[in-house]
Amino acid sequence: MDIAIMGYGVVGSGVALLLQKNYESIVARSMQSSLNLKYILDLLDFPGDPFESLIIHDFETILRDENIGIVVETMGGLNPAYDFVRRCLLAGKSVVTSNKELVATKGYDLLCVAKEHNVNFLFEASVGGGIPIIRPLTQCLAANEITEVAGILNGTTNFILTRMIENAMPFDHALRLAQNNGYAETDPTADIDGHDACRKICILAALSFGQHVYPEQVRTQGIAALTTDDVEAAGDFGYAVKLLGRAKRLPNGRISCSVAPTLVPRESMLANVRDVYNAILVRGNAIDDVIFYGRGAGKLPTASAVVADIIDCAKHTTRRRFFGWEAGGTHFVADADDDAVNMFVRAIADDTDQARQQLVGLFPTMEEKKTASGSLCFMTGVATPRLVKQALASIDGLQVTQMLRVL
Amino acid sequence: MDIAIMGYGVVGSGVALLLQKNYESIVARSMQSSLNLKYILDLLDFPGDPFESLIIHDFETILRDENIGIVVETMGGLNPAYDFVRRCLLAGKSVVTSNKELVATKGYDLLCVAKEHNVNFLFEASVGGGIPIIRPLTQCLAANEITEVAGILNGTTNFILTRMIENAMPFDHALRLAQNNGYAETDPTADIDGHDACRKICILAALSFGQHVYPEQVRTQGIAALTTDDVEAAGDFGYAVKLLGRAKRLPNGRISCSVAPTLVPRESMLANVRDVYNAILVRGNAIDDVIFYGRGAGKLPTASAVVADIIDCAKHTTRRRFFGWEAGGTHFVADADDDAVNMFVRAIADDTDQARQQLVGLFPTMEEKKTASGSLCFMTGVATPRLVKQALASIDGLQVTQMLRVL
Repeated sequence: MDIAIMGYGVVGSGVALLLQKNYESIVARSMQSSLNLKYILDLLDFPGDPFESLIIHDFETILRDENIGIVVETMGGLNPAYDFVRRCLLAGKSVVTSNKELVATKGYDLLCVAKEHNVNFLFEASVGGGIPIIRPLTQCLAANEITEVAGILNGTTNFILTRMIENAMPFDHALRLAQNNGYAETDPTADIDGHDACRKICILAALSFGQHVYPEQVRTQGIAALTTDDVEAAGDFGYAVKLLGRAKRLPNGRISCSVAPTLVPRESMLANVRDVYNAILVRGNAIDDVIFYGRGAGKLPTASAVVADIIDCAKHTTRRRFFGWEAGGTHFVADADDDAVNMFVRAIADDTDQARQQLVGLFPTMEEKKTASGSLCFMTGVATPRLVKQALASIDGLQVTQMLRVL
Repeated sequence: MDIAIMGYGVVGSGVALLLQKNYESIVARSMQSSLNLKYILDLLDFPGDPFESLIIHDFETILRDENIGIVVETMGGLNPAYDFVRRCLLAGKSVVTSNKELVATKGYDLLCVAKEHNVNFLFEASVGGGIPIIRPLTQCLAANEITEVAGILNGTTNFILTRMIENAMPFDHALRLAQNNGYAETDPTADIDGHDACRKICILAALSFGQHVYPEQVRTQGIAALTTDDVEAAGDFGYAVKLLGRAKRLPNGRISCSVAPTLVPRESMLANVRDVYNAILVRGNAIDDVIFYGRGAGKLPTASAVVADIIDCAKHTTRRRFFGWEAGGTHFVADADDDAVNMFVRAIADDTDQARQQLVGLFPTMEEKKTASGSLCFMTGVATPRLVKQALASIDGLQVTQMLRVL
């Protein structure tokens, strides 16, 4: 079977390398006599690269070659990835992608095209890098009704938060350290503002709950507004602050889907996920909590997931892998403000004692801790963020500086 | 499709319950029009039980019923489970089991029978209870050469160790607490002595490295000889003591396979696995470290894994799931004493200063910590346990009271 790679960046070159490195066992596990990497599509030429001779610049070459059964898309972005992937599927080629933006935005459409043309569209690498999550979620936990999925889905922000927690390093300083270590891009917006995690939680939500969730339906909050005071105060209550993507079925049947800095109890395994590592928690009605942990990015770890999908495509040339989801809709996704949780609040009051008195009236189970700065810092007890915001707004002279949910 | 359960204990009754609880989604995911639980084989009658009417006592009823396509074995033990399972496979029925002793002892034979008769023999529940591990290991990580697999595979011993570490509770006291909480059996030997973990690491080793590993080939050491002093001293060096099942490919190509209390660095996620939870670490040459965490036992978690296998059997009525391993052999398994690791040693010397001087000569990179009791306590630096034992034996008047490996 012949394979083409589209996009020779970090992940694409990792796939070429891994196919070569573990070639013998990969072929044996794919039930094929051979797996031949034939083309690598890229804009550039890569002179001197070991795979230089495979580089092509014209997508049509791949499309027209009937021997190409599997196309790997590791270009990233929507254009031209979406067009290329769609046309490959229409031409009867299976596609494996690591492109979370593509799956989060166009997943339902592409799954439909793949189904109509009896080919596979697989994307294990699009969430959690090398961590096995999509098959475990759809197959191993198939006996469960999933009630919640929550994860540390972005290594860059987890590295920054780890430094803020463990070294009391301010956000800006920790971001620069991440950049110096190669963990953050020069323009770190997609990571810092939560957009990367947002795309991943969309995919996990769709797999867990059966309908497409679009990035614009997800309330997304990044970590740039967090201070070391926030992180320290959360620590005083026994929590670590982690950027969590989270999708949860509410009692009304709708799915609450969000990305936000979240307080994770220190006893939770998620609280102990440090630096650039990722972890995904799945809650099911039979299994209770399961956690999958590992490297969420990187050349070979991500390639490991891509190649697992290649093996799966090669094994299933005449049969499709059965997973996917239905079309999304506005009725499916709840407002995350309707999800009742315990909340952490920091605020400054004109008259602290008076504000405290009013707060105790509004939040009878609230728990307060003294802060060095004299600001008010407390946990509300379980309530919907909507009600908490209304209640806090009703107190004169109270300025809320931070408000975070608890896992 | 009709299903029979053999053995109506904790797991078997969980399977019946879960099939009922999530029936609709389970049937949909199995691609069948129905999944009908028809018989439950047990020695007892269970009057008043919701599934009382399905109870039968004669195995031949299941064997002769041509509509039974999937048989669930949750009896445990080798006899009569082995005979029953084998005859079901010979009769063209797929078998799903949670019986680790059966798979660790007879797995290769049963996989061969299943292959010859084109049926499935699946056993996700036999390792790590509800934690998805067998599919992730064989499918999601298929692009990797696995170099090591190590896990906290027994909840009872992990509960006891957690109490010893966190509460400085002596072993006997922690064992009684585990028994009072229903986490340990009245006869806790199989857990405490490591036999349960041994069966599980046999299965993981076979899946990871491709040949059957038999329990008698695994050096198995339990936790009964651990003292709170050991645990505390390990803590001083920055480690948590965990009972690990461990299988590792050595530079000579052979597999070292062992069960033993092991020092796990406190920064490792495995060190943070508390109480009855289990976790399995897989190391691959592309993925680096991945960890799977969750409930390693219990009625519904284990049933979750069994029912996932049932769904898989139902989806693959005409095709087999491709995984298994080759026959084992003496040449395949290494002596765990040949695996070079850092080691933790506690010892009492007739002349402490003189012994220390000799030790420094033998272990130039050794690291020592003072103990309250005045006993010698040190890390050897990386060496094979064989050499460490020889070296320690060469010191006159030195009595080794504890010797543990580091992960």
